[in-house]
Amino acid sequence: MTEFDTGLPSVKQVQGYIKDKQEVELKLITDDLIVGKIMWQDPQCICLIDHYDQSTLIWRQALVFLKPKA
Amino acid sequence: MTEFDTGLPSVKQVQGYIKDKQEVELKLITDDLIVGKIMWQDPQCICLIDHYDQSTLIWRQALVFLKPKA
Amino acid sequence: MTEFDTGLPSVKQVQGYIKDKQEVELKLITDDLIVGKIMWQDPQCICLIDHYDQSTLIWRQALVFLKPKA
Amino acid sequence: MTEFDTGLPSVKQVQGYIKDKQEVELKLITDDLIVGKIMWQDPQCICLIDHYDQSTLIWRQALVFLKPKA
Amino acid sequence: MTEFDTGLPSVKQVQGYIKDKQEVELKLITDDLIVGKIMWQDPQCICLIDHYDQSTLIWRQALVFLKPKA
Amino acid sequence: MTEFDTGLPSVKQVQGYIKDKQEVELKLITDDLIVGKIMWQDPQCICLIDHYDQSTLIWRQALVFLKPKA
Repeated sequence: MTEFDTGLPSVKQVQGYIKDKQEVELKLITDDLIVGKIMWQDPQCICLIDHYDQSTLIWRQALVFLKPKA
Repeated sequence: MTEFDTGLPSVKQVQGYIKDKQEVELKLITDDLIVGKIMWQDPQCICLIDHYDQSTLIWRQALVFLKPKA
Repeated sequence: MTEFDTGLPSVKQVQGYIKDKQEVELKLITDDLIVGKIMWQDPQCICLIDHYDQSTLIWRQALVFLKPKA
Repeated sequence: MTEFDTGLPSVKQVQGYIKDKQEVELKLITDDLIVGKIMWQDPQCICLIDHYDQSTLIWRQALVFLKPKA
Repeated sequence: MTEFDTGLPSVKQVQGYIKDKQEVELKLITDDLIVGKIMWQDPQCICLIDHYDQSTLIWRQALVFLKPKA
Repeated sequence: MTEFDTGLPSVKQVQGYIKDKQEVELKLITDDLIVGKIMWQDPQCICLIDHYDQSTLIWRQALVFLKPKA
């Protein structure tokens, strides 16, 4: 669905959030707002971990926006 | 729509849930939250089985997120 | 959008429902739940027939899940 | 997005409705139900004409289901 | 996502609306109904201009239907 | 999903908004309306910065329309 080129600014920005263990807010197509730290990304999914160390696999097709938690 | 490479972390994580018979929660694009065990995955669908041993074929395009049931 | 390989488990499962004239429930992206028997599938659509022998052409992009009617 | 092969059953069924000037109901992703006769189809759109002879261009990506009007 | 072949009837019909400065109604996936004149189309977007000469870039993936304003 | 050819009018128009630091309104598939300045675009995302200098990564698949803020 989406291109996944590790040289893309958007892929690198997500990579930066992973490295910095930055807490982020992810808005999904269902209008859910998920908060957590991104563990990894692949061409299909983003894996988030929440405060309780629970991991959630999020499909890229469901992504709307992502921002660092203020 | 989505890439389906059995070497991808996301595909492997789902494969792990299958192997461990891990109960999972699947959020769908319609906002439905389905609980069950994943039986198999293919490039088009994920097959879930519920408490009553009923199987549901879920199209990947409808997937939003997946997490192990707490 | 989705791969259509007649060897895929998901394609075969639908093919099995067709052969068995199994009554199924189909959840669509609009949240409609349609009940009927699948007549045929092709890479673009699934054709369902209801109790009144009326046929409905359903686009694959609108599919969320499918299960045998209990 | 979707395959458009004029030999597909689904493409032929739509072609049949065009030829027979069959009145149809089209359910769209926005939950709109549009009634009319299909004038033509191409890989991107379906063109419908209503009772007032007004034509509507409908994008295929928005199609959910189609059935002959009872 | 969608094919963009300038020889397609649907692309030509939009091109006709551009040439005729025809006022159109555009239904979007968010259920918004936008009224205006189409300035141009490209494989990714349609550009609409409203009564106040303000231009709006509309992504094709968000298009549901389009009809001439009655 | 969408073509990303830097010669496309729609890509150039976004590029123009970036260069002019034009404040824009972005309507998303979740019906959110986001206001800000576009920092950059790539084939996967558009990056917006708001009044508080916070950056938001928006996936292209979630874009509905974009217009300059009046």
